[in-house]
Amino acid sequence: MPSEKSPSPNELAAKPLGEHEIINLMRRHLTPMPNIAVGFGDDVTAVDLGADGKVAVLKTDMLVAKTDVPDGMTLWQAARKAVIMNVSDFAAKGAQPQVALVSLGLPRSLSPEGLAAIADGLDAGAREYNCFVVGGDTGEACDLIIAVELFGVAQKGKLMLRGGAQPGDVLAVTGLFGLQTAGLLLRQNRGFVASIELSRELLDSVYMPHARLAEGLALSGSGAVSASIDSSDGLAWCLHELSEQGRVGFEVSDLPLAAEAEEFAHLNGLETTDLALYGGEEYELVLTVKPDLWRKAAAAVNAVGGKLIPIGKTTADKHVLLDEGGKKREIVARGYEHFKD
Amino acid sequence: MPSEKSPSPNELAAKPLGEHEIINLMRRHLTPMPNIAVGFGDDVTAVDLGADGKVAVLKTDMLVAKTDVPDGMTLWQAARKAVIMNVSDFAAKGAQPQVALVSLGLPRSLSPEGLAAIADGLDAGAREYNCFVVGGDTGEACDLIIAVELFGVAQKGKLMLRGGAQPGDVLAVTGLFGLQTAGLLLRQNRGFVASIELSRELLDSVYMPHARLAEGLALSGSGAVSASIDSSDGLAWCLHELSEQGRVGFEVSDLPLAAEAEEFAHLNGLETTDLALYGGEEYELVLTVKPDLWRKAAAAVNAVGGKLIPIGKTTADKHVLLDEGGKKREIVARGYEHFKD
Repeated sequence: MPSEKSPSPNELAAKPLGEHEIINLMRRHLTPMPNIAVGFGDDVTAVDLGADGKVAVLKTDMLVAKTDVPDGMTLWQAARKAVIMNVSDFAAKGAQPQVALVSLGLPRSLSPEGLAAIADGLDAGAREYNCFVVGGDTGEACDLIIAVELFGVAQKGKLMLRGGAQPGDVLAVTGLFGLQTAGLLLRQNRGFVASIELSRELLDSVYMPHARLAEGLALSGSGAVSASIDSSDGLAWCLHELSEQGRVGFEVSDLPLAAEAEEFAHLNGLETTDLALYGGEEYELVLTVKPDLWRKAAAAVNAVGGKLIPIGKTTADKHVLLDEGGKKREIVARGYEHFKD
Repeated sequence: MPSEKSPSPNELAAKPLGEHEIINLMRRHLTPMPNIAVGFGDDVTAVDLGADGKVAVLKTDMLVAKTDVPDGMTLWQAARKAVIMNVSDFAAKGAQPQVALVSLGLPRSLSPEGLAAIADGLDAGAREYNCFVVGGDTGEACDLIIAVELFGVAQKGKLMLRGGAQPGDVLAVTGLFGLQTAGLLLRQNRGFVASIELSRELLDSVYMPHARLAEGLALSGSGAVSASIDSSDGLAWCLHELSEQGRVGFEVSDLPLAAEAEEFAHLNGLETTDLALYGGEEYELVLTVKPDLWRKAAAAVNAVGGKLIPIGKTTADKHVLLDEGGKKREIVARGYEHFKD
């Protein structure tokens, strides 16, 4: 009987498990659902709803104050961000979230005003994307935890999954990178500097992220996208994920670095490529577009006020390379941890 | 701008907020979704899926180790319980859960064996009810937190909601009460006693709860039920909730107390009625049945191996009364906290 073999909740580990270790271990222990429309390993889960090709799209992403809420972020902003994180995953698949449930772990010390700020932030994040918070649960926790779960309905054939990139496809993004990473570095008081105006722009990008839902829905509608992923784990990590799942490679010829991030890098002696590649929390979409449909895809994004930026091409050889004026070097698979110390 | 008015995450409250206060405050701050099929205030949320009367049914319930995992419960059991808690809410509405997502807050000290036990427990709980764990997210937390989110599809007209009881309806339950409360009291080492055999039965009921999903589906199929609720907050609390939402009252003439709970009460000088009424975590269904369809409802539950137990009747006068041989007294609206010292 498994219950007797289980360790007690207090059993100590030699060292903490990493997120990927945790996910892999969990997956090995869970019974796979037969014929699931979209299972583990993509930005969302999807389950068939019937014969007309519709699927229920589901996602949960958890915000933990200690690791996901930088200094200076208000409770209202933290709660809003907890929604945005999840909407961004729906955006990457081209699915409209309809309702949100929220699981709240609340510290005993939280005041009614603090809770009201959380509720208002959740509501603001949901309403920005035409979604409603309709239920949830709450419990006492020692740190603030906000797990948002989104639900929506989509056409299965319209979902933009991670695994479909083809050699020759255009590699593209929906916005520039590096602002959020620069903002986080600045916020950590590790001696980095910026002008007041630059500081404000960098910190705004951290405190008030936006999800590219309109762009994702437009791209899905265009039928031009072969693969797509949300960039919250950083551009380099995304490229490796699209590479692995599509069994293709990429050559990035135009790094999509925001001007403010470039300015921050120069001021502080940081590598601009590092800021663009190894950051995180940009909530942009990283996608591949069928070359003959590029103009259609770009026009669809323009029509909703966004911008589709080509940054390179998809190759057959499974390497993820940065092409710096003909000199190619490997983009390694790592994320934001790189900047820690 | 709301973000500037928000208090900092560290702002202290004068006293901790209660769960009902938290829920009421949240609701006041959230934009209501127009035309939602089942909104706040029932065991689940439901959203219309289209013209054929189908709804998406959603639920999240959060297990926090500190408050929801009694001493002696293994990680495998705790994870399984996190699923059962949610399945019980689907059971009360007569909806089959199809998939589960899980948000895991994990202490740094958790070992790979501990995590494997959690994954196995989640899988076991889901598979017992023909459901699959298909996704989730994880973050570092100081206490173990398992928030399970269930999704399923149901016919809107078949959902057994809280608000439909009519005067004259039979009040019924799907099983006996008090075992879990007796088990929790015994476990707290406050001087309560029981024989080894009785202890084992009481603790088993705490560590290995079961949800009445087969019963709930059968009852929904019978069309005989006018209102239903999951009893996890205790029988007294459920009756008041059905009373309030249905604008009816109840007279309980046969308290559904388990024989083992009665034995425990006698051994320890506790009121048997208190054990039946003011406990919790029984995960039974408490429901009202149209009197002319009673036999149909009872037969449907029998057919899946369960038992439908009549305990009283629905009245027009909105009082919740215990009828002890003709002597009637009020059943007060309180839960398990009553037993805390």
